[in-house]
Amino acid sequence: MKLAALIQYKGTDYSGFQRQNNAPSIQEAIEDALHIITQEDCKINYAGRTDAGVHALSQAFDFTTNIERDCEDWIKGLNSNLPNSLLVTQIIKVDDDFHSRFSALARSYTYCIYNSNQKPIFFADYVHWEKRKIDITKIQNQITAFKGEHDFSAFRSSNCNSKNPTKNISEINLSIRDNYIFLNITANAFLQNMVRIIAGTLVDIGKGENTNSIKDIILSKDRTQAGRTLSSQGLFFLGPHYDQSVSLNTPSKNILEFFN
Amino acid sequence: MKLAALIQYKGTDYSGFQRQNNAPSIQEAIEDALHIITQEDCKINYAGRTDAGVHALSQAFDFTTNIERDCEDWIKGLNSNLPNSLLVTQIIKVDDDFHSRFSALARSYTYCIYNSNQKPIFFADYVHWEKRKIDITKIQNQITAFKGEHDFSAFRSSNCNSKNPTKNISEINLSIRDNYIFLNITANAFLQNMVRIIAGTLVDIGKGENTNSIKDIILSKDRTQAGRTLSSQGLFFLGPHYDQSVSLNTPSKNILEFFN
Repeated sequence: MKLAALIQYKGTDYSGFQRQNNAPSIQEAIEDALHIITQEDCKINYAGRTDAGVHALSQAFDFTTNIERDCEDWIKGLNSNLPNSLLVTQIIKVDDDFHSRFSALARSYTYCIYNSNQKPIFFADYVHWEKRKIDITKIQNQITAFKGEHDFSAFRSSNCNSKNPTKNISEINLSIRDNYIFLNITANAFLQNMVRIIAGTLVDIGKGENTNSIKDIILSKDRTQAGRTLSSQGLFFLGPHYDQSVSLNTPSKNILEFFN
Repeated sequence: MKLAALIQYKGTDYSGFQRQNNAPSIQEAIEDALHIITQEDCKINYAGRTDAGVHALSQAFDFTTNIERDCEDWIKGLNSNLPNSLLVTQIIKVDDDFHSRFSALARSYTYCIYNSNQKPIFFADYVHWEKRKIDITKIQNQITAFKGEHDFSAFRSSNCNSKNPTKNISEINLSIRDNYIFLNITANAFLQNMVRIIAGTLVDIGKGENTNSIKDIILSKDRTQAGRTLSSQGLFFLGPHYDQSVSLNTPSKNILEFFN
């Protein structure tokens, strides 16, 4: 029997989602908790890796088990055995051909920027702090150039091993609340560090430090034309989107829907 | 020359405001930063102690110095030498008879409760998590009984060494946002743990676990009639209020004014 789950996590104290030797990972915490409540040797699939420090509102994972339990009992059992910074919010039975990663049609992320000359005290783990004033209009004028299918080679880490740099961004927009700027992106898939480099490029444009057009940067396919990779702690994986036949909750497309 | 300052801090990593041997304190962090930028041996006065884990939006402190500097330069200099979880937001020149503690006419606090069967992942350092459903109406029906001048002996820690247990609560109310309940209190002064015990008592009443009336609990002057002391991490010191002749910014009376 195959089960699929949604999980929230604060990534601050983890070296990332994927299991690693000698470093705490979200995957290890989940598989350890599954082992405790099943005594089975559970390996999970998951929608997408997240880097050290990156948070998630609805990461998805799936696993196969021989144990019959109510989905509510699975949630309670897992949450009782997960560290404080992880929370399973949904578990459902899925068809055997479901795969958290390969079944995902799209993924949504939000990157959070705190734009103030005063450092963020209370939410430092959740934002990139940008001291210099960002001109939102400059970003708004350019942001739609990201939309659609493009070769995003200019916006990938040099370590990225994706075979195909062409991805399709279906939605990209900003939400503003006081000193916070939220960059919301949905695409079919992402290259390594793609959201953080897009955020860094838009910040540079908003500060007047990069006068290239987004269109030209994309066409250049040249990483050096784009901006810095912003720090991981400002990044939230909102979650994957599946076909409506899969009854996992659809993630918010905007972090403010989650944090009201 | 005497200067007065307002400072915000995240109290999580500190053993409280007051300087202690062998434990990090907010006072020590401030006095160390002052020493670095003045080379003087600065001792500060402050509006009120806060316990380990308690946060502040506008704690006040004052100090005497022989050094002449723009207030903006004082702020920059201090902030450059304070740890990441402390932020000075205002510094002004004050009369020599000003004292952060003795000149304060009133103080405001907010206690933050997260009422959900799911644990708080992202704001765990800032809330008391209450799993069982709290009936807000039960609290609202009783809360105004706290208002005015009363002997609050039932709401003080057994360690409290205040000579006078009679304090005057000028404002007490709740703000609600989704699963968050914010208890806002302003009084001329507070006994040790008074806000945390008031919060614990109201939570017990809201859960139907304490059917005593607030009026009777106050009259009893008996600590055992009141509720638990809730954990320190849900407590925010919003700040002291001074006579309007002192031009320190007045603190928010409601945490939502600060966190929008």
